[in-house]
Amino acid sequence: MDISNEFAIGIDIGGTNTKWGLVNHRGEIIQKGDLRTDAHTTIDAFIDALYDTLTPIINTYNSEGNIKGIGIGAPNGNYYSGTIEYAPNLIWKGIIPVTKLITNKFGLPSALTNDANAAAVGEMTYGAARGLRDFIMITLGTGVGSGIVANGQLILGHDGFAGELGHTIIRHGGRKHWSTDLSGSLEAYASATGISLTAKELLQNSNEESLLRGYSEKDLNSKAIYECAMQDDAIAKEVYRFTGQILGEALANFVMFSSPEAIVLFGGVIKAGNLILQPTKEHMERNLLPIFQNKVRLIFSELQEADAAILGASALVWDIRD
Amino acid sequence: MDISNEFAIGIDIGGTNTKWGLVNHRGEIIQKGDLRTDAHTTIDAFIDALYDTLTPIINTYNSEGNIKGIGIGAPNGNYYSGTIEYAPNLIWKGIIPVTKLITNKFGLPSALTNDANAAAVGEMTYGAARGLRDFIMITLGTGVGSGIVANGQLILGHDGFAGELGHTIIRHGGRKHWSTDLSGSLEAYASATGISLTAKELLQNSNEESLLRGYSEKDLNSKAIYECAMQDDAIAKEVYRFTGQILGEALANFVMFSSPEAIVLFGGVIKAGNLILQPTKEHMERNLLPIFQNKVRLIFSELQEADAAILGASALVWDIRD
Repeated sequence: MDISNEFAIGIDIGGTNTKWGLVNHRGEIIQKGDLRTDAHTTIDAFIDALYDTLTPIINTYNSEGNIKGIGIGAPNGNYYSGTIEYAPNLIWKGIIPVTKLITNKFGLPSALTNDANAAAVGEMTYGAARGLRDFIMITLGTGVGSGIVANGQLILGHDGFAGELGHTIIRHGGRKHWSTDLSGSLEAYASATGISLTAKELLQNSNEESLLRGYSEKDLNSKAIYECAMQDDAIAKEVYRFTGQILGEALANFVMFSSPEAIVLFGGVIKAGNLILQPTKEHMERNLLPIFQNKVRLIFSELQEADAAILGASALVWDIRD
Repeated sequence: MDISNEFAIGIDIGGTNTKWGLVNHRGEIIQKGDLRTDAHTTIDAFIDALYDTLTPIINTYNSEGNIKGIGIGAPNGNYYSGTIEYAPNLIWKGIIPVTKLITNKFGLPSALTNDANAAAVGEMTYGAARGLRDFIMITLGTGVGSGIVANGQLILGHDGFAGELGHTIIRHGGRKHWSTDLSGSLEAYASATGISLTAKELLQNSNEESLLRGYSEKDLNSKAIYECAMQDDAIAKEVYRFTGQILGEALANFVMFSSPEAIVLFGGVIKAGNLILQPTKEHMERNLLPIFQNKVRLIFSELQEADAAILGASALVWDIRD
């Protein structure tokens, strides 16, 4: 069959919303939509709702078997077992056999992994990591996620849970994470929440004037910090310098683990551009053995943030073995 | 051919000595020997000497093509290119095309990797990691080396240099490494040199009596510390507890990277047994996300230390594709 007529359905399950899209091999989204996740108290009700939504599209595009399958990205999604396991931010508890339920309902092959792994596969299939066999994807959003590709394959580990780089400890005895209770993990600093905590700490520990002081504690988010930094506010700029330092030190450790050709950064935090990229690169290089220096490309994702999760989920489909 | 009659030659090139052995599929060393590395000022002279040494053995055992090839473990050995690249502790400088020279001279296929990767392959082929597809080997000797196996393959990275876990930073701003100049790397604490530095620091920072005070600075090595710890010396025991804490914290980070089924520890430092194993395990578990806790087996190598490098090098041969 002409692969230009082949499609994959990508589904991104989040705590509140679920997005879906019909995607071709070039990463073009032909149709997309979303539905509430948390409006469905059981997984069966959720899958029934998905089925009702997607059936007209499947009927239109699958006339000759052109839809190759359904890929799903979800928190705590396990590629090996096809199950979502104890996801804290989903209303369905325990172990959910997602791919089994989807394939039974839709009669299509399906594959599942976690959000960050799906993002890595999406980047490798359609984005900045096309053609790369060794790279690390770091997603910097509300949390810090990661997907690691080595020898052209996702590193999944013996249990499917590899690649939790946001929870590696980068500052011994450092900032306590608000939900994991670990001290000094990367996510405690380099997530949107972490960045906002850094700003609050810097404001508390100094009397320096700052545009940031015009914000209430609640409104002092990474968007506000970015805007103040763009107006040359010294404390706001220091927030990014410090965040980049921590991130760069963490990336140096990751490079000495898997020696990737590139590290792809993704998520809201990278909107700060060079404010974050420059200190990250500087501190990554400074903490590398010479043998690794000036070799690793530090690049931004090429996928539209709004579509990346759908694209990543859809990209899982092309690798499903019949 | 009956594989019980197949042999591999394993060669371990160290700064001072080079060891060789003729090994079968069960990891039994049929013959072995060694020669000085540093007595040969050029790589060609070294390979000529190896050839003269090995020719009688090859003539005896290779009558029916039973010798499948030559595997080499060497510092900075690159599996992809078959070259030793800028190894600081070898007298041959620059980039040495080892596998090309060996294969040309001996007429046998050859493969090269660094010492720790060879140890990992050896452990997977003949030792404690038999049958494992996801594990990490940590060698704790003069330095701290590592070999990472995921999906049943060595993680080599885009350039062949992956797996330098001894140089990852575990204590920001911590102890300066004597040769890399990095601050707070794992090797600065968990190598034999690091352990001896920890003992010196503890003795300096306290007035407590200790058997360790009976040693000159030069003689205060990890063997002395082990012996004092076995006599229940409080400072000597604290050296191991602290070393295990640092190692355990580092292992937690590694687990969250590749989610291995086991971590295999190897090298002189593990002679301390539970003195090092118990605090390592405790601090590894304490720094893991719950999803990883109580899943990773922390085990000791099953290869005789004296033979492990030869076995590891020989194990590379079984994977050479014709």
